[in-house]
Amino acid sequence: MDLRYHTALDGPSLRALGIPEPWIFGLADRVRFGELDAVGHVNHTAYLRWFESFRLPYLKARKVTDYGPTSPRLVLRSVAAHYMAEMGADVDYVVTGRTRAFRTTSFTMEFGVFLPTDAGDAQMTASGEAVVVLLRRDGRGRYPLPDAGRQAFVALDRARADRV
Amino acid sequence: MDLRYHTALDGPSLRALGIPEPWIFGLADRVRFGELDAVGHVNHTAYLRWFESFRLPYLKARKVTDYGPTSPRLVLRSVAAHYMAEMGADVDYVVTGRTRAFRTTSFTMEFGVFLPTDAGDAQMTASGEAVVVLLRRDGRGRYPLPDAGRQAFVALDRARADRV
Amino acid sequence: MDLRYHTALDGPSLRALGIPEPWIFGLADRVRFGELDAVGHVNHTAYLRWFESFRLPYLKARKVTDYGPTSPRLVLRSVAAHYMAEMGADVDYVVTGRTRAFRTTSFTMEFGVFLPTDAGDAQMTASGEAVVVLLRRDGRGRYPLPDAGRQAFVALDRARADRV
Amino acid sequence: MDLRYHTALDGPSLRALGIPEPWIFGLADRVRFGELDAVGHVNHTAYLRWFESFRLPYLKARKVTDYGPTSPRLVLRSVAAHYMAEMGADVDYVVTGRTRAFRTTSFTMEFGVFLPTDAGDAQMTASGEAVVVLLRRDGRGRYPLPDAGRQAFVALDRARADRV
Repeated sequence: MDLRYHTALDGPSLRALGIPEPWIFGLADRVRFGELDAVGHVNHTAYLRWFESFRLPYLKARKVTDYGPTSPRLVLRSVAAHYMAEMGADVDYVVTGRTRAFRTTSFTMEFGVFLPTDAGDAQMTASGEAVVVLLRRDGRGRYPLPDAGRQAFVALDRARADRV
Repeated sequence: MDLRYHTALDGPSLRALGIPEPWIFGLADRVRFGELDAVGHVNHTAYLRWFESFRLPYLKARKVTDYGPTSPRLVLRSVAAHYMAEMGADVDYVVTGRTRAFRTTSFTMEFGVFLPTDAGDAQMTASGEAVVVLLRRDGRGRYPLPDAGRQAFVALDRARADRV
Repeated sequence: MDLRYHTALDGPSLRALGIPEPWIFGLADRVRFGELDAVGHVNHTAYLRWFESFRLPYLKARKVTDYGPTSPRLVLRSVAAHYMAEMGADVDYVVTGRTRAFRTTSFTMEFGVFLPTDAGDAQMTASGEAVVVLLRRDGRGRYPLPDAGRQAFVALDRARADRV
Repeated sequence: MDLRYHTALDGPSLRALGIPEPWIFGLADRVRFGELDAVGHVNHTAYLRWFESFRLPYLKARKVTDYGPTSPRLVLRSVAAHYMAEMGADVDYVVTGRTRAFRTTSFTMEFGVFLPTDAGDAQMTASGEAVVVLLRRDGRGRYPLPDAGRQAFVALDRARADRV
């Protein structure tokens, strides 16, 4: 199995690693020693760090932000993670993510963590969620989700537009 | 305000810091520089570290485990956090926690993060949840919640006994 | 032993905890679960985090910076740590620090980590060093060590004034 | 420039990235958001985490340990780091390392951090050192450096054999 780390993996690339629909954006990395806790498994907070690292390039690719001075400030309203299998040292994994729904000034993402394989179905070791709110940088309230981001959420992730 | 760090705070002590019912177990600490992220606020994963640090003495006090060789292995099934207000450098906070419900081999905790004050109501900056599963150390399946733990959950936290 | 956490401990307070001359500034804290690594000991980088947390209030107390908009930017040029004894979960410790020497735009600190005791000599589990450089916030070169800081280094820490 | 992450890079591969002699073992990775501190630069402890992550595959490659139950316990006696240039978000870097000298039951490593380039000399942003001691797992004193490790240190890294 040839795994490209730190590079956006598209739908066909993910499928080749055993990772199913609907995931079309993934990033591969490897567990580090410092992410293990005192019992030798990946600490539960490490997964949330992985989701955080995922969001940065993903939200740029979805044109929600260019991280420039006029871009919105993105703030987490909530996060959740569900743990299905423990992970050990030095393991290769792929984080997948997509936007499930959005409103005028917020959106909801979901995440997966998979052990990639070229022999069938990849094992999912964890899943997650995050609600992100867009704020104005001058502190004066909410920032509307940019049109380009909204369109990318719908066209690429088939995200649901929720009424506020 | 006199704040005792790293020491279990009971109901009256929490009330004196503006922290309301039903919290009866709290631990005070101070934000560290290393917990800030690149925008100068406490990173969202730090709160989950605080909940983790809370669980260790709390579960001992509730007689769920003495962390000895015959104690159950405690594994997180899921976590969640909700963020209400950003926190900055060097801030004093109190983490509160209790068990809301339990089953034969698992239980659900909830958490709060408060800015203590001796002048009225403490501000809640975050809340959280965790589902913890008890496993046998020999890897052979689940471990029943010890009776002493079950009784402490009911008597002290008024936790709900759920049918499995 | 009554240990005040997160509060500057002066010479007499340190002596009462078994911590010797020349230390006159200390901060007490407790090892957290998240600081343990996969073999159950405090990870070696945690000590450097402790020294970092120490520097913030210490450098304010020594009038080197008020962390305001016109204050110097403090940048680490180098760090070192020496490990003498492993530390486990939930242990109380005191970090001590002082400035050993200074030049026009930099200074050298040294650190200790002690297990406090009220029964004789405290055990030193680690020591450390850091060279800090003062820079202008506008990026235009070095910032001279403020006079008040220089005087405090000499008067309180008996720091050595090195020729540049 | 084509950069292979998490894969041992040998001398010719490092030279192609602008990284000079004597480095013959390198590992590439990318800065993560969680490694930035409150001023937006890579925190000084992150470099020491990188050196730690480097040591694991390097010491296996040098046949010092297979991390099995009869292998020595490797303990840090001291570390040091020197910082030459600040690093920001999302930057690709290569950590290099080698063993400079060894004794009967300890060895001294040195490290570099480089910004790889295919256009000339790579910039070195940091360097480091670590003294590692080998201990018996049963707690009964020191563990002699295995012959295969000693030979690899000499043959590959041209390490110096110090008298104890």
